[in-house]
Amino acid sequence: FDGESSQAFKVHKGMGLINHVFNADSLKKLYVSNLGIGHTRYSTSGISELQNCQPFVVETLHGKIAVAHNGELTNAVRLRRKLMRHGVGLSTSSDSELITQLLAFTPPLENDDTADWVARIKNLMNETPTSYSLLIMHKDIIYAVRDPYGNRPLCIGRLIPVGDMNGKGKDNSETEGWVVSSESCSFLSIGAEYYREVLPGEIVKISRYDVQTLDVVPRPEGDPSAFCIFEYVYFARPDSIFEGQMVYSVRRRCGQQLAIEAPVEADLVSTVPESATPAALGYAQKCGLPYVEVLCKNRYVGRTFIQPNMRLRQLGVAKKFGVLSDNFKGKRVVIIDDSIVRGNTISPIIKLLRESGAKEVHIRVASPPIRFPCYMGINIPTKEELIANRPEFHDLANYIGADSVVYLSVEGLVSSVQESIKARQENENSLKTQKSRVGKIGHCTACLTGEYPVELEW
Amino acid sequence: FDGESSQAFKVHKGMGLINHVFNADSLKKLYVSNLGIGHTRYSTSGISELQNCQPFVVETLHGKIAVAHNGELTNAVRLRRKLMRHGVGLSTSSDSELITQLLAFTPPLENDDTADWVARIKNLMNETPTSYSLLIMHKDIIYAVRDPYGNRPLCIGRLIPVGDMNGKGKDNSETEGWVVSSESCSFLSIGAEYYREVLPGEIVKISRYDVQTLDVVPRPEGDPSAFCIFEYVYFARPDSIFEGQMVYSVRRRCGQQLAIEAPVEADLVSTVPESATPAALGYAQKCGLPYVEVLCKNRYVGRTFIQPNMRLRQLGVAKKFGVLSDNFKGKRVVIIDDSIVRGNTISPIIKLLRESGAKEVHIRVASPPIRFPCYMGINIPTKEELIANRPEFHDLANYIGADSVVYLSVEGLVSSVQESIKARQENENSLKTQKSRVGKIGHCTACLTGEYPVELEW
Amino acid sequence: FDGESSQAFKVHKGMGLINHVFNADSLKKLYVSNLGIGHTRYSTSGISELQNCQPFVVETLHGKIAVAHNGELTNAVRLRRKLMRHGVGLSTSSDSELITQLLAFTPPLENDDTADWVARIKNLMNETPTSYSLLIMHKDIIYAVRDPYGNRPLCIGRLIPVGDMNGKGKDNSETEGWVVSSESCSFLSIGAEYYREVLPGEIVKISRYDVQTLDVVPRPEGDPSAFCIFEYVYFARPDSIFEGQMVYSVRRRCGQQLAIEAPVEADLVSTVPESATPAALGYAQKCGLPYVEVLCKNRYVGRTFIQPNMRLRQLGVAKKFGVLSDNFKGKRVVIIDDSIVRGNTISPIIKLLRESGAKEVHIRVASPPIRFPCYMGINIPTKEELIANRPEFHDLANYIGADSVVYLSVEGLVSSVQESIKARQENENSLKTQKSRVGKIGHCTACLTGEYPVELEW
Amino acid sequence: FDGESSQAFKVHKGMGLINHVFNADSLKKLYVSNLGIGHTRYSTSGISELQNCQPFVVETLHGKIAVAHNGELTNAVRLRRKLMRHGVGLSTSSDSELITQLLAFTPPLENDDTADWVARIKNLMNETPTSYSLLIMHKDIIYAVRDPYGNRPLCIGRLIPVGDMNGKGKDNSETEGWVVSSESCSFLSIGAEYYREVLPGEIVKISRYDVQTLDVVPRPEGDPSAFCIFEYVYFARPDSIFEGQMVYSVRRRCGQQLAIEAPVEADLVSTVPESATPAALGYAQKCGLPYVEVLCKNRYVGRTFIQPNMRLRQLGVAKKFGVLSDNFKGKRVVIIDDSIVRGNTISPIIKLLRESGAKEVHIRVASPPIRFPCYMGINIPTKEELIANRPEFHDLANYIGADSVVYLSVEGLVSSVQESIKARQENENSLKTQKSRVGKIGHCTACLTGEYPVELEW
Repeated sequence: FDGESSQAFKVHKGMGLINHVFNADSLKKLYVSNLGIGHTRYSTSGISELQNCQPFVVETLHGKIAVAHNGELTNAVRLRRKLMRHGVGLSTSSDSELITQLLAFTPPLENDDTADWVARIKNLMNETPTSYSLLIMHKDIIYAVRDPYGNRPLCIGRLIPVGDMNGKGKDNSETEGWVVSSESCSFLSIGAEYYREVLPGEIVKISRYDVQTLDVVPRPEGDPSAFCIFEYVYFARPDSIFEGQMVYSVRRRCGQQLAIEAPVEADLVSTVPESATPAALGYAQKCGLPYVEVLCKNRYVGRTFIQPNMRLRQLGVAKKFGVLSDNFKGKRVVIIDDSIVRGNTISPIIKLLRESGAKEVHIRVASPPIRFPCYMGINIPTKEELIANRPEFHDLANYIGADSVVYLSVEGLVSSVQESIKARQENENSLKTQKSRVGKIGHCTACLTGEYPVELEW
Repeated sequence: FDGESSQAFKVHKGMGLINHVFNADSLKKLYVSNLGIGHTRYSTSGISELQNCQPFVVETLHGKIAVAHNGELTNAVRLRRKLMRHGVGLSTSSDSELITQLLAFTPPLENDDTADWVARIKNLMNETPTSYSLLIMHKDIIYAVRDPYGNRPLCIGRLIPVGDMNGKGKDNSETEGWVVSSESCSFLSIGAEYYREVLPGEIVKISRYDVQTLDVVPRPEGDPSAFCIFEYVYFARPDSIFEGQMVYSVRRRCGQQLAIEAPVEADLVSTVPESATPAALGYAQKCGLPYVEVLCKNRYVGRTFIQPNMRLRQLGVAKKFGVLSDNFKGKRVVIIDDSIVRGNTISPIIKLLRESGAKEVHIRVASPPIRFPCYMGINIPTKEELIANRPEFHDLANYIGADSVVYLSVEGLVSSVQESIKARQENENSLKTQKSRVGKIGHCTACLTGEYPVELEW
Repeated sequence: FDGESSQAFKVHKGMGLINHVFNADSLKKLYVSNLGIGHTRYSTSGISELQNCQPFVVETLHGKIAVAHNGELTNAVRLRRKLMRHGVGLSTSSDSELITQLLAFTPPLENDDTADWVARIKNLMNETPTSYSLLIMHKDIIYAVRDPYGNRPLCIGRLIPVGDMNGKGKDNSETEGWVVSSESCSFLSIGAEYYREVLPGEIVKISRYDVQTLDVVPRPEGDPSAFCIFEYVYFARPDSIFEGQMVYSVRRRCGQQLAIEAPVEADLVSTVPESATPAALGYAQKCGLPYVEVLCKNRYVGRTFIQPNMRLRQLGVAKKFGVLSDNFKGKRVVIIDDSIVRGNTISPIIKLLRESGAKEVHIRVASPPIRFPCYMGINIPTKEELIANRPEFHDLANYIGADSVVYLSVEGLVSSVQESIKARQENENSLKTQKSRVGKIGHCTACLTGEYPVELEW
Repeated sequence: FDGESSQAFKVHKGMGLINHVFNADSLKKLYVSNLGIGHTRYSTSGISELQNCQPFVVETLHGKIAVAHNGELTNAVRLRRKLMRHGVGLSTSSDSELITQLLAFTPPLENDDTADWVARIKNLMNETPTSYSLLIMHKDIIYAVRDPYGNRPLCIGRLIPVGDMNGKGKDNSETEGWVVSSESCSFLSIGAEYYREVLPGEIVKISRYDVQTLDVVPRPEGDPSAFCIFEYVYFARPDSIFEGQMVYSVRRRCGQQLAIEAPVEADLVSTVPESATPAALGYAQKCGLPYVEVLCKNRYVGRTFIQPNMRLRQLGVAKKFGVLSDNFKGKRVVIIDDSIVRGNTISPIIKLLRESGAKEVHIRVASPPIRFPCYMGINIPTKEELIANRPEFHDLANYIGADSVVYLSVEGLVSSVQESIKARQENENSLKTQKSRVGKIGHCTACLTGEYPVELEW
């Protein structure tokens, strides 16, 4: 029990944008130190309140730990009752508090004079299969943990001296420290370079200069891994790297695949700025049609306080975009969208394009329709809100006012995602590298197919 | 386990002034309901952070409880280790979390199908002697608990129909509900009238229309009660009632007692606005000297951003007060102060009065010097900062620039406080009323004498 | 034309409390300099908008001037038309802009190579008789001007070295600079001492070390001066000095006079905290009754966001005050108030005192009833809102629930104000001092009597 | 003089973003009315202070006027002295106040019983040649005025019923009102359609339903018009229309022209998101090279409070962009930029691309180098800051780290801008339409060539 060093944790939390929560004042109050955990979360399980904000910090008999959790436990209700039955009062509705108390609680404690945190982490992983990527800070160590299914992303970056940020590779330059993040895109902006992913089930111990695999907890025999396919489709920034491939490249392949599955006779290919641009460029190139901009973003759009009357409600879309009508007047337009979830944003855009002179408007969606809820950390509208579950879906083109609308198939998406992974894995297998420990590759497509990677407990 | 009703707790916390934390928005979000706990605390044990804000709300196997705590546990360190040894991760440094987890934890829980909250509260009271006044909310019941020594105040008010707010007494008017507070002065402003104190050791169960004593946990044989005497001297609002007497009356008696102990030949009696006015009026009346105002408050004083230079540092007092020099020019002035803690505020006031024409300035302090730290909830400067522990104290008049300075004696203070309590108690004893359960009356004078009501644990 | 030095004016304005408008940031942006004008005004003529905020700064052919104005011009409408007829576009509704443009405009300008600011100021004073106290800043000079009737206050203070702030008198200590203010009470808090008033009609030129009378513009033959009597009654801080006397002393004399005019058989004298305390002490002393506190202020009252229902509207007063009921239970109470304007604040206080046990409640008001509007800078409720103009006034005691209510007479007020002025003036006249230039002493009692010091123009 | 209706102007101003200045509160306070002027200005002449904010509102003998001004007067100093010589005190340093006072002042006023606002506007236009686009509001009329050189843009839009927003053209649908703006791109978002430009020198009178040309003030014989060419290059939103053409189309033509003037052997064409995209697509199409994205925007970048150390200063660019390295690794890249002003933003981008694997990086700039200050309303860095005036410019490719860098020629820019205007004008001239009143078409290229459209006065 080292009260003093454990007291050294300094916590700052807040709700809202990072730049508001972490301003000059609050940053000054945080210690200048070598070690830290940050967390942003759009709370999925648990109410959106400050108390649910991470990291969770608790003092245990063996010092303070701070825990940051990305994901959502599929057996949270059972774990909750188990802890309360042992007499632990739970102060939040967050499943991340369960993880923290399970780490503090793990018996037997009476004879436990030296804290074995790896044993505690493995016990935790035996209690709950998915989904969680965790950072656990204790004294001068951070443990980075990914659940055995690898449902949520987690990767490691290497801080390198500024002078050496020249892509010479890790062998040539000194390491200044390590960073861990859900998305690799964050590394560049803090002067780090992508090092590697934490593997499904892996427990990594990170200290000032060292990254060390402590263990890899396996999945049940035969279960494939289950990384969330929606990270590729929608959530991740295009420059992020998952499973060895750039998200942008996957999205462009989705566009190419879509061109194969659903070609259309048209004059130009475009997109709604700006997330579907890679798919649109892929589609255009595969079809041999020109890629043309039809809308420009209104950069300074913000909250509007003007009284909402009939006129202005209809103008919602026109507030967000400018129309480059000269670019498509009298032409047949294919619009590539990354996903149609509720169906109420694409409809006024189609109307706007037609009013500005488009001759035909065809919609191609670079992902399959979402039909099922996610219980593993992604906030998806209710089943009733999803357009794919509603009667209008049977005549969707008519409902949204398009000349035609086609979604990418599940198979098309999965193959676009797995194509280069499998190629590389075959290659690696032939080399019998350590990476083969990942086991059978799969992806969680639960929101598209209803097939969840583990049984859900209630 | 009644998940639904326990979910009905709605919590809003914040740091800062009540009017900032509870604004129109936050109040709207709180349920319109019949039951609630509020809490403001200048944190004494535990860091001043949002997480330490009360009430503490935890979910237990038998539903949610919310706990508000006024006071400070004298054996917090031992309780802390005990809980952690049982595997409870503690998320704050607050002793109020210990109380909450002890209520959730109390064994045996395995066979505990029906929660016996009174037994849990009594167990808690056996674990820790003082100091705590507690409100514990569970479903539609609030338990009001005061520690056996009665160190912190707690009293009950009765909401009465507005039309009946005419002092006719409780028998004649309908009761609309109950309120519990540390200070009775808060009742008037919400339309309630003072009903009675919670007695030392008493566990009171409060529901919509009913107030019921469940038990009175006794002190160890022979120990007197130990209500904080500093509430009378300094903290409480003058219109508050403790132990059956108005604080204002106690302060006036202190002034009268001070006139007996330390008379002075002078022309007028005055005070530093505005907390010592009752003592000053009592002193003036007892001495037969006129009560005259010498300073007026500068109502709009606030933070000043002007660069602090030599001139302005010396002007600090002049910023807070205006001088009514015509009222005392050429006169001998007695200034009554309620306490001199550090000695650095009275000194520039004396200087200001002299510069404005006072012939003599005598200081009379209506309480004894503070010499010892408080470990029961009051935030007192460190021993080194207390003027009474410093060498200057031996020639205090000279140090602060007064012609003379005399403090009230501890005996004088205690007798001013206990005079009417004892008179009433004798009267009540002769009537053999229920109130005799209070036991031997005493007061905590630890900060003045170093005699703490219980042994301190570290 | 000295563009460079005139550019050196640095202006910062804002609406709201001084501490919000002048924060660390805005003060840093103001030049560190030897010369400045500040202004706070509760706008009476002209809408309450930032543009109307003073000082008004304009560039003229002879450099920039900044003008701060306290008062309200009685012939603003005529001056407004006159300026617009000359082709000046007026950007605010404030009469202070008229003063500024009249100073810029004064013809003949074509041949005016050297700016004669004193001539311009005298021209301005010939255009408008009252009411204005002005500070006019040009380059390194400030002109302090008071209208010939002296309706608004203006006085000069002397900054003295801190070490010398010991009341030795102005001859013994060095002068560090000069300050000008409406109220002398502000001097103490910035380390200055009261020097003298600006006389009615006086034009004073103030530079770094020098204060010099340039001229005294006389009133029409026979007109007495007309300083606002309401400054004594209500507006000024009690430690301010006007016409050689402390406001506190005038108020105490009003209380004494009220005791002579309207005695009452009672047990104690008290007041509503805190503005009427001097009058209450004067009344109590004259009557030989004890002065006792019956209410204490609730220090932290602020905006309340609680939904206003029947109960809470009735509790308004109870939110502002605590009741010291033990001090007056069963007693006959005289409450001294400084003024009753609308009559809706004293009424619930009387009710509260009765409900808390007062046997009788008598109200004595230390000023006469207000019946007429002010057109010279004081914001007074409309004639219809003034209780003295409403039918309820005929049975006021009954209307507000008091046992009796009596106002001070106009003659009583005037004599309380002028008593010591006249005594001193006789003394000075016999010494033939310079002060005799003030002429016949009078006071503006327009709001009480309807007799305005000058004819009003529309 | 109609005081009442002129009082109906309601003004709200503030500094900062529109959404902060015009929030729900401030909008509620503005009258619901049929007429209004809004203005946003990045102040170029006159200090950036609230007082300089537009519209300027003044009361004149003939009622209130409100004036909004876009532009900067080339003879402001002379006009300033002229007004002050007439006795007008000027309260701001803004040239827009000069315009307002000149409109109020215009003699002869003594006999001027009916205000002839058109005469006043024409007088103003005779006093100052350029640059100004004005909106002048008086009672229920708005006058829209553009200076004879047409230096600043101004155009009129037509509010049409929502149901009719279908591009059927103005003849078929009812007009609901008129709007005037600098840029037509704002029309769509408020439900208006582009109607026409205000011509150089034109005075347009706009009432509820009517748009009427009152006069067109001519330029001196032989002077061509001088619309700011930088609006095309940089300032305007791409969907805006000037002189009958969409800005996006001009920018794409600039890219095409650049491909003709400065081709390069490369593998792909890209851009720095996102203003140069039209030029990049034009360049790519003309060259026959693929258009590929190399950077993605970091959407949530904001102020960063992290202590600026060596590492982080070098990371500035990496904070704004993500690198899509897989898209260009080992390739020769052409980056199209819209302008290089100071040269310090492109340099780290080139470094970033090289470090991420680009084989060659060629820069092509779709506008000529800026070399001269603008005195007509555009805020341009000082001559010393402009890269084109510094020695490094002689070896610019080396300085910024590019393999090559070429700017578009002035002739290339002018022809890209004028190509379709001239084609249309020839066509119109042959039809002898009213539009021929515009006279000889030219553009202000002063910042590129130093040739100002009028002589500059000091």
